[in-house]
Amino acid sequence: MGDNQRMPDDPWLTDEQQQVWRAFLRMSGQLNECIERDMQQTGGMPHAYYLILAMLSESPGRSLRMNQLADVVRSSQSRVSHAVSRLEESGWVRRVPAPGDRRGQLAELTEAGYERLLELAPGHAGVVRSTMFDPLSPEQLANIHDICATILEAMADRGFTSEYPPPASC
Amino acid sequence: MGDNQRMPDDPWLTDEQQQVWRAFLRMSGQLNECIERDMQQTGGMPHAYYLILAMLSESPGRSLRMNQLADVVRSSQSRVSHAVSRLEESGWVRRVPAPGDRRGQLAELTEAGYERLLELAPGHAGVVRSTMFDPLSPEQLANIHDICATILEAMADRGFTSEYPPPASC
Repeated sequence: MGDNQRMPDDPWLTDEQQQVWRAFLRMSGQLNECIERDMQQTGGMPHAYYLILAMLSESPGRSLRMNQLADVVRSSQSRVSHAVSRLEESGWVRRVPAPGDRRGQLAELTEAGYERLLELAPGHAGVVRSTMFDPLSPEQLANIHDICATILEAMADRGFTSEYPPPASC
Repeated sequence: MGDNQRMPDDPWLTDEQQQVWRAFLRMSGQLNECIERDMQQTGGMPHAYYLILAMLSESPGRSLRMNQLADVVRSSQSRVSHAVSRLEESGWVRRVPAPGDRRGQLAELTEAGYERLLELAPGHAGVVRSTMFDPLSPEQLANIHDICATILEAMADRGFTSEYPPPASC
C-alpha cells in the first residue's frame, strides 16, 4: 500500500512503515507460536493460563480480584472467569470471597498452583530468553524497551487505559 | 523471576529482560486489541480475514494456493480454510481449481473482495499508523525494523521455517 506520493497527513503507511508492520506482525506471531506451543507441550495449558498463575504469585496474598486479574493479563472478565474455572479443576487456583465485599470474589493461587508455576517457570523463561533475548544486543534490548514504552505511553495518552474493553479512542 | 545472582548460562531472565518481556506482551497485546476491534467495527471481520484479502491482492492473479495462504498469514490450513469459507459466503473470495493440479485449490480474490479491501485499507492503515508509527521517531522506526529482523533471522537459523506448524526446535 506504500506510495512515495503520499501526503504527510494522509492515512497510508509509507513503504518503510509497511515493511516494519509486516515484520512486526510476523515476529510477534512467530514468537507467540513458540511460547504457546512450548507451554502447551510442557505445561499442558495455554500461555494465558500460565500468566494468570504468574500474576497471582506476584500479588499480595497470592490473590487478585477477578477484574484486577482480567486487567493484568489483558483479557475480558468472561475469558478470565473461564480460565480460572479450568485452573480450579486442576487444583491450582481457588475462588474465595473478597474480604469486606459480599459480592466480590478473589482468585487465589493454591500451594499446588505455586509449585506448578515453579516447575514451569525455568523452562518458560528459557524459551523466552532463547527466542527473544539471546539474539539481541544490549543496545537492541534497550531500544525495544524504549519502543514498547513509547507506544504504550502514546496509547495511554489517547485514552487506552488498563480497563477492558478499551475505549473507542485507543 | 529476575535475580542478580543468575549464572549467564541459566534459563532465567534478568530483571531487565523480564521488564522488557512484560512490556512487549502488553504493547503487542494492546496493539492487537486496537487493530482487531477497529477491523471488527469498521469491516465486520477479524484482522486475520483482512490480512487474507490483502495478501491475495498482492499475489499474481490475486490468488494463492491454500497452503501458501496459510503460510503468509501464519495460520493453520484448517483455520485458513474456515476463514476462506466465510469470505466466500460474503462473496469476497472464491475457490478455483489450481491449474495443472487436479487435487489443488486456489483461493482467489473476487472483484467485490478487492473493492472491499480498497474501502477498508485507508482506515486500517490510519489505525496502524496512529497507534504504532506516529509515536515513533525515525530512529525508533529503524530500530524496531532491525530488532524484528534480528529475532526473525535467529528463529529461521534455529529451524523456524515458514511451514505451519513450526518444528519443535523453534
